[in-house]
Amino acid sequence: MIKIGIVGASGYTGEELLRLLSNHPSAEVVAATARAAAGKKVSSVHENLKGLYDLTFEEPDYEKIKKECDIVFMAVPHGTAMDAVPEILKDSKCRIIDLSADYRLKTNVFEDVYGMKHKAPIDAVYAIPEVHPEVNADLKDRLIANPGCFPTGATLAAAPLAAAGLLKSVIFDSKTGVTGAGNTPSATSHYPNLAENIIPYKLTAHRHLAEMVQEVSRLQPGFENVSFTPHVIPVSRGIMTTAHIETTEKLTTADVQNLYEDYYDGKPFVQFAETVPSLANVRGSNFCHIGMEADARSNRVVVLSAIDNLVKGASGQAIQNMNLICGLKETEGLWFPGLI
Amino acid sequence: MIKIGIVGASGYTGEELLRLLSNHPSAEVVAATARAAAGKKVSSVHENLKGLYDLTFEEPDYEKIKKECDIVFMAVPHGTAMDAVPEILKDSKCRIIDLSADYRLKTNVFEDVYGMKHKAPIDAVYAIPEVHPEVNADLKDRLIANPGCFPTGATLAAAPLAAAGLLKSVIFDSKTGVTGAGNTPSATSHYPNLAENIIPYKLTAHRHLAEMVQEVSRLQPGFENVSFTPHVIPVSRGIMTTAHIETTEKLTTADVQNLYEDYYDGKPFVQFAETVPSLANVRGSNFCHIGMEADARSNRVVVLSAIDNLVKGASGQAIQNMNLICGLKETEGLWFPGLI
Amino acid sequence: MIKIGIVGASGYTGEELLRLLSNHPSAEVVAATARAAAGKKVSSVHENLKGLYDLTFEEPDYEKIKKECDIVFMAVPHGTAMDAVPEILKDSKCRIIDLSADYRLKTNVFEDVYGMKHKAPIDAVYAIPEVHPEVNADLKDRLIANPGCFPTGATLAAAPLAAAGLLKSVIFDSKTGVTGAGNTPSATSHYPNLAENIIPYKLTAHRHLAEMVQEVSRLQPGFENVSFTPHVIPVSRGIMTTAHIETTEKLTTADVQNLYEDYYDGKPFVQFAETVPSLANVRGSNFCHIGMEADARSNRVVVLSAIDNLVKGASGQAIQNMNLICGLKETEGLWFPGLI
Amino acid sequence: MIKIGIVGASGYTGEELLRLLSNHPSAEVVAATARAAAGKKVSSVHENLKGLYDLTFEEPDYEKIKKECDIVFMAVPHGTAMDAVPEILKDSKCRIIDLSADYRLKTNVFEDVYGMKHKAPIDAVYAIPEVHPEVNADLKDRLIANPGCFPTGATLAAAPLAAAGLLKSVIFDSKTGVTGAGNTPSATSHYPNLAENIIPYKLTAHRHLAEMVQEVSRLQPGFENVSFTPHVIPVSRGIMTTAHIETTEKLTTADVQNLYEDYYDGKPFVQFAETVPSLANVRGSNFCHIGMEADARSNRVVVLSAIDNLVKGASGQAIQNMNLICGLKETEGLWFPGLI
Repeated sequence: MIKIGIVGASGYTGEELLRLLSNHPSAEVVAATARAAAGKKVSSVHENLKGLYDLTFEEPDYEKIKKECDIVFMAVPHGTAMDAVPEILKDSKCRIIDLSADYRLKTNVFEDVYGMKHKAPIDAVYAIPEVHPEVNADLKDRLIANPGCFPTGATLAAAPLAAAGLLKSVIFDSKTGVTGAGNTPSATSHYPNLAENIIPYKLTAHRHLAEMVQEVSRLQPGFENVSFTPHVIPVSRGIMTTAHIETTEKLTTADVQNLYEDYYDGKPFVQFAETVPSLANVRGSNFCHIGMEADARSNRVVVLSAIDNLVKGASGQAIQNMNLICGLKETEGLWFPGLI
Repeated sequence: MIKIGIVGASGYTGEELLRLLSNHPSAEVVAATARAAAGKKVSSVHENLKGLYDLTFEEPDYEKIKKECDIVFMAVPHGTAMDAVPEILKDSKCRIIDLSADYRLKTNVFEDVYGMKHKAPIDAVYAIPEVHPEVNADLKDRLIANPGCFPTGATLAAAPLAAAGLLKSVIFDSKTGVTGAGNTPSATSHYPNLAENIIPYKLTAHRHLAEMVQEVSRLQPGFENVSFTPHVIPVSRGIMTTAHIETTEKLTTADVQNLYEDYYDGKPFVQFAETVPSLANVRGSNFCHIGMEADARSNRVVVLSAIDNLVKGASGQAIQNMNLICGLKETEGLWFPGLI
Repeated sequence: MIKIGIVGASGYTGEELLRLLSNHPSAEVVAATARAAAGKKVSSVHENLKGLYDLTFEEPDYEKIKKECDIVFMAVPHGTAMDAVPEILKDSKCRIIDLSADYRLKTNVFEDVYGMKHKAPIDAVYAIPEVHPEVNADLKDRLIANPGCFPTGATLAAAPLAAAGLLKSVIFDSKTGVTGAGNTPSATSHYPNLAENIIPYKLTAHRHLAEMVQEVSRLQPGFENVSFTPHVIPVSRGIMTTAHIETTEKLTTADVQNLYEDYYDGKPFVQFAETVPSLANVRGSNFCHIGMEADARSNRVVVLSAIDNLVKGASGQAIQNMNLICGLKETEGLWFPGLI
Repeated sequence: MIKIGIVGASGYTGEELLRLLSNHPSAEVVAATARAAAGKKVSSVHENLKGLYDLTFEEPDYEKIKKECDIVFMAVPHGTAMDAVPEILKDSKCRIIDLSADYRLKTNVFEDVYGMKHKAPIDAVYAIPEVHPEVNADLKDRLIANPGCFPTGATLAAAPLAAAGLLKSVIFDSKTGVTGAGNTPSATSHYPNLAENIIPYKLTAHRHLAEMVQEVSRLQPGFENVSFTPHVIPVSRGIMTTAHIETTEKLTTADVQNLYEDYYDGKPFVQFAETVPSLANVRGSNFCHIGMEADARSNRVVVLSAIDNLVKGASGQAIQNMNLICGLKETEGLWFPGLI
């Protein structure tokens, strides 16, 4: 039984780790930290867990955690993980899966994009398993950078064309559920502001763009013609990414479909929609559903990907990464359908 | 042209007064106060007003307001109106329509229910025009207590049976939109908490119960067997009140329908639904739609009323009251349909 | 491995059985019938099941089903199950769990309430496991009547007071998600009609009332003073039941809380909310969350229950019943949290 | 008083014409046709109109209509208007504002895009007033083609750059409320399918693309590099258009802002958002709110426009067109704010 610690377990991604791990056959959560909630029952704070956990939130104590845990999930805001990561890695065998942004980018890119000095640069492995085969049981690294929600949906939408070197320009027009903004009430999450509305933001310069460029250019070296515009839609969970792609050559819908099916062959969490994907079909699950259509008039393709931002876009992918580096079956504890 | 001042114009009821008055043929907003927004254009804060107002929010200055205004709307939280009301009334001809709770109840009841000392008790007229015919051009009082949102919907649902002395017990099970809780983001208004959910609260002891008892017992002297349970539903605007009424004698649906049609004859803002009322049909409007069914098996009647909590439940009713006491047509500036 | 057949698997309850059984350790779906979808892959119709099922919908063939299956779930409309049930039971060892209304009521009550002749009256066991301890591995009956969604939420809200003989009158004011109305588009489910709205219906005479009376009067013999008013709220899944209960004696909130905790002791799927229950906390799960408050001024108690209408209110409870009559652990395949 | 006839008044755009015209100072609806609803009170079908109309739906009788009416609004599906238009225009002085697609495109383009023979080609004026100054009191044409909802939002988002000849490529990624699909319940409008979801459709080949190309290329001759992908979001009313524009030269946000402010100077219904526009701020109103940001890294600009699809995108614009061709003030009957 893998012993799990969750640092920052009172937020959405922490809660989601607790939800998903409550049914994992080979893992057990032994510690969950949350400063503000310390001393409270996990199931009094996250009432959906009533009956399923007898755990109590504790103050973060990294010495204790590194003794008790095999895997530590960091479910904290960016700028915070870097405070704890070196301490947890030091003199321990713990492996860390960091859901924050702290280790996803090269240090100089991180500092530029996030506007802060990196306090503890350490080599980490960026892990979207479907496009990073190095994430497996042989991996030596002990620090995994779990990708951002938007970059996961965007990368899965563009990867097969990128890997084939076919991208000329890409615009990711993404629509996200509001849990992506965290569980602190804000003007954006205020029901009368969001219901029956859509809130575009950071029209040309969202931080996740750097991750998208990193991943797409890794697959198609030299390609950086990527734009990204996010919108919050009146949805709690889910990201629909509409990728407007200009290709270097004219493709039919069948061409693109074949390319994607080949690329994702053997990747259980990527499935193809009958027509267009739906957030409902992946809700609460680790699946990514993909659909596409080539424009008969031009070199353009529209590719859609649908994920649950808290699962495939965060905590589910983190557990998928844990499964892979621990030598478990990739789907263990995650092989259940979306909640329509 | 009636000169209007709005104290507390940055909240929902203030905004709604501005929206509704932008089209009033006989009234003009000349002052809108809002401490936090002072100095900002009204239409920069409430962007739906762009093009329609050139007004700027100002700090509250009651001496200035009482000089400039004929009617002052108090759109402030309870406990705050009582600070300004005496100052505005003193040495002026201003009339005040207070949307707060400060003057709706007898002083001792107010102090008991709201748990605070009343700083400035003054006689006021409680005004749901459909059940308070004294609200007219002859009214001498200069302070109008505009009713609460829940009590408006509840009173309109029960008044005809109360006036006929037929009530034995009443349970108001009310479902409100979340704007009733104000425009400050909170756990209740946090989109992921409210969407796809319903939030019951104050199951037996909401403050508005005292107003309901006051109004129903005024119509049916001695009757106080009233219960009230509110719920927030995933809706921005509107209150659906389900009144579960036990009557002192057996009535058919037709009996009740006739009673209600007679009682509300000549009241333009009360209309009867074809089957059941709908929040959509009254959205943004000052109408109250009513529907009902008697239980064939018992002395029970279910009466439904639908209002927009910000209009008939607050700012629209306030303007209706203004029209009446100023000798204007009751419907002036308010005679437009709901937005389905 | 228990072999499962689902008759009528293209509707919401059929889909939900497929979802829930995809992870059941001791059961396997071997047949799923659906006339209109016959020949199509289950996962092409219910795309959330992509990757999880390789099953194809078939035309109903009861001879085949009774040979292949140990348990047959009837997920069909009322009036339809009675056509198939006798045929499936005859000369077979199959047990049937019927999610329709056909076998929930005494035959004469059924005929009265549903306005149709019962074609095949057969003794069945009505099964809300928390209040029907006879639903266990010793049960001889081969036909289980799975309760209606509203009656499940209502009965769980009132059962402890009924069992203690404390009920004087009960009004169930229920708020349901729209999946309760099925997956055929209708005026009620038309998004612009339901969003930002609430739709009361059958104010005094919904068919489920008979089931509620049956269950409450079974627990408190002779008590039939039950009223029921349903509303559709802008929610896909869930029923919040607000039970307005008049008791035969004055009780405090603590009295009621103790009574309920005792009554549901050892019932894993009933949990108590910290304050009020939430549809979010039970979404997609088989849990029922309960909260309550006694009115300090009177003999009234408000009890709230929250369930997912498709799970505890239908397919989850059906599987819970299957587990119990098959001698499995009650929670098998169902022990996972709600999706907030 | 202008006498108005509405053909097809039971659908959303007909209902919206009735709503908006109920307050128009210079126009009066004298006839409303609707086959299925003929003989019913307008306010029994559209209950939001209770108290405001005493009109009854009638069978279409064009001879009667052309005698009684000065202006006829065609609020019917495409392919239907062309049946009535020639008959109404013949031997009458009626002017027609056609909300259908029948007269928006050149005949050959119409036939190609809509896949049907045009039965009655007649010259018409396509009228988005902000970009078609020929729509004024001097206009001789008696047939006005009222634009489609998506093309209105898209054209207003791109027009200033097009008029300046600065477009290199444009992708309109549009998000619409579901009323755009009409008031017949369908799989798309089925609440559980749309709530908490987003439904992309016709990814590269929606019929409205032809209108967009027509309008943009009229402003920037020869420019046809336009793509369009629509999505239905869980919203009843509104279209947010995200225009991803590549320009022929590098522009700053201030450059673009100035260009747009100049272009729309004197156009009362176009307003600029403080940051990004919101569907809430234009809900129910005839306003279009616009926001924008230039990408500091490239020749790209993102422009957003928000409209109410049923008002500025249909019935409000139709009335605006009526005002203009009748020599009324453009804003008459339409000068009221959005309903937040």
